[in-house]
Amino acid sequence: MDYQEWHLVRRPQGAPVDEDFELVGGERPRLDDDTVLVRNTFLSVDPYMRGRMNDGPSYVPAFRLGAPMDGGAVGVVREVSGEVKDSTGRAVQVGDTVLHGLGWRTHAVLPGRALRVVDTDVAPSQAWLGVLGMTGLTAYAGLLRVAGFREGDVVFVSAAAGSVGSLVGQIAHLKGASLVVGSAGGPEKTRWLVDDLGFDRAIDYKAEPIGKALEEAAPDGIDVYFDNVGGDHLEAALSSFKQHGRAAICGMIQRYNDTEAAPGPRNLALVIGKRLRIEGFIQSDHLDLRDDFEREVGGWVREGKVQWRETVVEGIEEAVHGFQALLTGGNTGKMLVRL
Amino acid sequence: MDYQEWHLVRRPQGAPVDEDFELVGGERPRLDDDTVLVRNTFLSVDPYMRGRMNDGPSYVPAFRLGAPMDGGAVGVVREVSGEVKDSTGRAVQVGDTVLHGLGWRTHAVLPGRALRVVDTDVAPSQAWLGVLGMTGLTAYAGLLRVAGFREGDVVFVSAAAGSVGSLVGQIAHLKGASLVVGSAGGPEKTRWLVDDLGFDRAIDYKAEPIGKALEEAAPDGIDVYFDNVGGDHLEAALSSFKQHGRAAICGMIQRYNDTEAAPGPRNLALVIGKRLRIEGFIQSDHLDLRDDFEREVGGWVREGKVQWRETVVEGIEEAVHGFQALLTGGNTGKMLVRL
Repeated sequence: MDYQEWHLVRRPQGAPVDEDFELVGGERPRLDDDTVLVRNTFLSVDPYMRGRMNDGPSYVPAFRLGAPMDGGAVGVVREVSGEVKDSTGRAVQVGDTVLHGLGWRTHAVLPGRALRVVDTDVAPSQAWLGVLGMTGLTAYAGLLRVAGFREGDVVFVSAAAGSVGSLVGQIAHLKGASLVVGSAGGPEKTRWLVDDLGFDRAIDYKAEPIGKALEEAAPDGIDVYFDNVGGDHLEAALSSFKQHGRAAICGMIQRYNDTEAAPGPRNLALVIGKRLRIEGFIQSDHLDLRDDFEREVGGWVREGKVQWRETVVEGIEEAVHGFQALLTGGNTGKMLVRL
Repeated sequence: MDYQEWHLVRRPQGAPVDEDFELVGGERPRLDDDTVLVRNTFLSVDPYMRGRMNDGPSYVPAFRLGAPMDGGAVGVVREVSGEVKDSTGRAVQVGDTVLHGLGWRTHAVLPGRALRVVDTDVAPSQAWLGVLGMTGLTAYAGLLRVAGFREGDVVFVSAAAGSVGSLVGQIAHLKGASLVVGSAGGPEKTRWLVDDLGFDRAIDYKAEPIGKALEEAAPDGIDVYFDNVGGDHLEAALSSFKQHGRAAICGMIQRYNDTEAAPGPRNLALVIGKRLRIEGFIQSDHLDLRDDFEREVGGWVREGKVQWRETVVEGIEEAVHGFQALLTGGNTGKMLVRL
């Protein structure tokens, strides 16, 4: 097949199943004037895409039924029509590695403003979908701006073996947190946090109740909670917060597949006496931080101070399975589809 | 009886009952050097006192069992020993009306730093417990600083006929809110909000589900929610928030008498996509605003632009009944005990 793209053909009820999607083949899209043809090499699948599969208002538009889905991707430029400059003003040439938003497909045709040439000397191409991309900026902006991290803070991160969480903990550690605690599912993940990433303590939430475990891991309380899961983890954080604690709410993956709304934390009234702040965010509100982010995190990447993992599924046929696994914790670090 | 004071003798389980308290008589406290004797004329009873009746950590210390409770009060200076200056440096004289923290009793002996002479030309003495006191500063700081109110905002206030809520709505109106919606229990209260206080719309939460009613009252959504009750009102506000909405959490009176923790809002995940901020506060963190507050709100009071109501119970014997009524909505505006 010369060209393939994934369509959403039915809105998932709860957990997405294979029948909600269809892989459609066809003719390769053709170059217009002042566009480039990209052969995608890595597709990103991300938790926020689950929201786009629902109908109704969300912070990003819902996927249309019977049309190709989109999302982050990197690829190599195969053809250029005319003189094309990328979003930073750099001339685009055949062979360049570019980052763009037309994932879930094998090839993409894009105008220059919709892509960006990336430097594969700093990090391999797929890192621009993860640690140096949207994933990394989510961690950076959420921790530093939304949660207002300060040197000496005690930081708790949920889904800490995930692509965002693992970076949050490393940034907190590198910037002088007094204690970094992460939660993840299973001993292999928790070992990775402590042995390799500089987390001080890690909680296996599948092995013990998160509330009690967090109290033991951070007996003097926490200042910052970076929330990727919601549910019992948020409740535990509220209980463990010190005065003036701040929660940056990045995701509530425990909730994404719910067909009925689940109750919120039973201890929310603690926000008053402890003067807590709970703030939701999405990374695209913080693109003004991208230069700072790329300089600082890019520097750590070059110096080998930041690590990340990738869980890679092979072939466009496996993209939906990769996405499904992501929602049930079947990944360590960034989930990618290699074409 | 020359002197009486209320003791907490048992920690309430759920709603406080008469047997949890005891009115104890005895000898009038005696003047020390550099103190004043005050005959209390009004005692304040406030929702936050319910938290102080529980054991365990709270943002203010728990009341001790078998000892007098305390709280806001105004009274008249009967005796002065030595040269006493109040907390602002003003000389205290017999006959002055003073504001202080030794309520729940008929008389108090205090050093100058623990009281403040108030100006009864601006407003009657008990107003310094309400609109110009802690109550007023709670409304002012919560709306303007914590919720970050801006001209043109759509504002929703719960317990809007209460002492804090009624002032929140009026401040929002006077400062240029585009729409002010309040909720209260019963048609008499809701009429007062709209007819007298400048609220644009009022919801009788006893007559209709708050979620649907708020959607109808503010069809384009709300920017600010000033929360005095928690529970279903907070859930309704989360649903009705526009992007970047801000909730100032002042109280969750629906929760105070709970013996079991009730579930939180089922729609808390909305904070992410809408980028909402939920922030708890207590007024004593915002005492730096007191000068601005007294100038601005005091000005409105003198000009007759701000109204308030008082529900007054008579006699120290009735203080506990007044407090109990406050927790079940038996007041309109500030609940006071007149001695």
